[in-house]
Amino acid sequence: MMIFKETRYGVCSPGFRAAGVKRGRYGVSLVVADRVCETAAVFTRNSVKAGSLRYTEAMVKNGVAAVVANSGNANCCVPSGVDDARELAEAAAKALGLSARNVAVASTGIIGRKMDMEAVKSVLSEAACGLAPNPQGSLQAAKAIMTTDTRIKMYSAESKGIRVGGICKGAGMIAPNMATMLCFITTNAALPKGMLGKALRESCEESFNMVSVDGDMSTNDTVLLMSNRTARTGYRAFKPLLAQVMAELAKMIARDGEGASKFIEVEVKGARSVADARAAVKAVSNSPLVKTAFYGENPNWGRIISAIGSRLDIDETRVDVTYSAQGRAAKLLSGGKPMNPEPARKVLAARAVKVEVDLHLGPSSAVGWTCDMTPEYVKINAGYN
Amino acid sequence: MMIFKETRYGVCSPGFRAAGVKRGRYGVSLVVADRVCETAAVFTRNSVKAGSLRYTEAMVKNGVAAVVANSGNANCCVPSGVDDARELAEAAAKALGLSARNVAVASTGIIGRKMDMEAVKSVLSEAACGLAPNPQGSLQAAKAIMTTDTRIKMYSAESKGIRVGGICKGAGMIAPNMATMLCFITTNAALPKGMLGKALRESCEESFNMVSVDGDMSTNDTVLLMSNRTARTGYRAFKPLLAQVMAELAKMIARDGEGASKFIEVEVKGARSVADARAAVKAVSNSPLVKTAFYGENPNWGRIISAIGSRLDIDETRVDVTYSAQGRAAKLLSGGKPMNPEPARKVLAARAVKVEVDLHLGPSSAVGWTCDMTPEYVKINAGYN
Repeated sequence: MMIFKETRYGVCSPGFRAAGVKRGRYGVSLVVADRVCETAAVFTRNSVKAGSLRYTEAMVKNGVAAVVANSGNANCCVPSGVDDARELAEAAAKALGLSARNVAVASTGIIGRKMDMEAVKSVLSEAACGLAPNPQGSLQAAKAIMTTDTRIKMYSAESKGIRVGGICKGAGMIAPNMATMLCFITTNAALPKGMLGKALRESCEESFNMVSVDGDMSTNDTVLLMSNRTARTGYRAFKPLLAQVMAELAKMIARDGEGASKFIEVEVKGARSVADARAAVKAVSNSPLVKTAFYGENPNWGRIISAIGSRLDIDETRVDVTYSAQGRAAKLLSGGKPMNPEPARKVLAARAVKVEVDLHLGPSSAVGWTCDMTPEYVKINAGYN
Repeated sequence: MMIFKETRYGVCSPGFRAAGVKRGRYGVSLVVADRVCETAAVFTRNSVKAGSLRYTEAMVKNGVAAVVANSGNANCCVPSGVDDARELAEAAAKALGLSARNVAVASTGIIGRKMDMEAVKSVLSEAACGLAPNPQGSLQAAKAIMTTDTRIKMYSAESKGIRVGGICKGAGMIAPNMATMLCFITTNAALPKGMLGKALRESCEESFNMVSVDGDMSTNDTVLLMSNRTARTGYRAFKPLLAQVMAELAKMIARDGEGASKFIEVEVKGARSVADARAAVKAVSNSPLVKTAFYGENPNWGRIISAIGSRLDIDETRVDVTYSAQGRAAKLLSGGKPMNPEPARKVLAARAVKVEVDLHLGPSSAVGWTCDMTPEYVKINAGYN
């Protein structure tokens, strides 16, 4: 068993600096490496893509030495999108003494409005002066890309000299197709690009794609992994560490769900395949009826069964449903038979609840994260403009 | 062009009687024909199915002479489900002088609790005494199956002596997987079972499946079409009439969405295929972000584009988005270019709004219906137990 040690550095792995500044409508974050990194990326599958994303997609192959990310404007659905992204990359390159072909750009905010380039570039200049190779730099960078986020999201860990750390933003709930998810991860793991890409894609499946995000992706979603390759390691040592860091960041997104009052972990066991188990987790964690029931502290296992049954062929007479929180577990359904719901009501009063479903159909399981749906969620999204 | 004349009879087409009674926790509705009808049905695709649905699924082939439907209990996920449905069918058959093999059963309400058979049968007896071959009978039947519904849903029309009429219940919104949809339709159209089935399935695709219902179906969803075959007609004359009646009923469901303050019609034009157009309509009308924006009267076309882009490959630089209400139209996006949003804000203040999206990619279009998502929706579903 591998031991991960949580560290404090966030995105500032050895050799990386970060900074972030918010001024008025715009925020700008920078993550800068000591060299051109081996880089892997995962982008939205939405066919509508932001200009920043299109720009970055085309230049990741060059290797990234710096990321410039702005909040306040998605740079999406505007004719000048790609040009504006290039202009931002060039401004960052100039400020940092780099080539623009090694600068990645990411944006989050409102769709369909042209970015005020002068304003953003002025915030960028300020950020470039504040770069720091420490937790404080990471914190500022994590802060400046927040939009509807209420919490700063950064996490890092090490194992045997391998460091992995990242920041992210996103307050995604059921369908955060506007609450863009951005994540920048740095590492010193000396692995070839192909392995970095494989580790990143697999870890995405187990982390961000299990935050009831999948399907309705934003036009801007971007996950970047940069390695300055200063520490030797192997795929088997690196992948679990990366997956751990990304899972912790993913949980922070669910915890910060728009208007959320509860964090929910959903585990489905006993599925015929991992694909089935993941589909079941997503069916549960995407269901507004399940999410509103959690808000109401209402042990409504019928909605859970119905959500899974709408996606998978299940046998409801075998299913177990258990809620747990703070070391207390309450079985609500046992082999399809309803149990006394009163203990579950008590468990549901906690702020973090786990729901475990055993389908008893096979060997596979999956875990995902979500939050409850509250009247506040509706108000936030009715007003955001 | 065919002329449909709206009638007042609801489910009481010539030769049909109906009744409904609510007492305490339970309601019972009856629809009774003057003979064993040629019958077609569409059921939920959820793999978890109510006992009543399983029972009815097995006996539709015998032909239906009466439907007994109860509200207050879904008769689902209880070991005695199919037996309890049979018991209800037998009680109805006895009260009506029919064979139980010609009695269909449908249920809606809470999952996982055994139905109080004595209570339901006593309401049934009372209903059987009140059967009436007129609008009042249809009204009572429509009323007794309501759960979270706030409006009675019945509609009927005729064309050249062919009568089609129905009642339904359902207050489905984004994912009405518990807000079961039940619909009973009667007709005098003398068509063979195969044609009735084809017309019913096709009309379902254009009506109930376009109310942002599809995908997350309830464990109990049932649509039954009964014909006593007293009027000669052809498929081509019958199908549009049936489709019209079902579309009107479907719109009533969207209008009565849980907690809804606005009714939204979504039309997507210029898609490559009808399947694409329908997928686009569903992507828009299922998106909580689009629905909350309507609640906020917020002309956020970015969420509409993003929802469609997450399902279809589109070219955002060609897309038009227009809102209209009460004869006033406001174009918000024209060939991918944002227009002044102020006129759209005024249009969005109406209680019924149409959003029209032209993708300019092909010849196909589709229409669907939904409602806005409100804080009230969350409260209703947090509390329902």
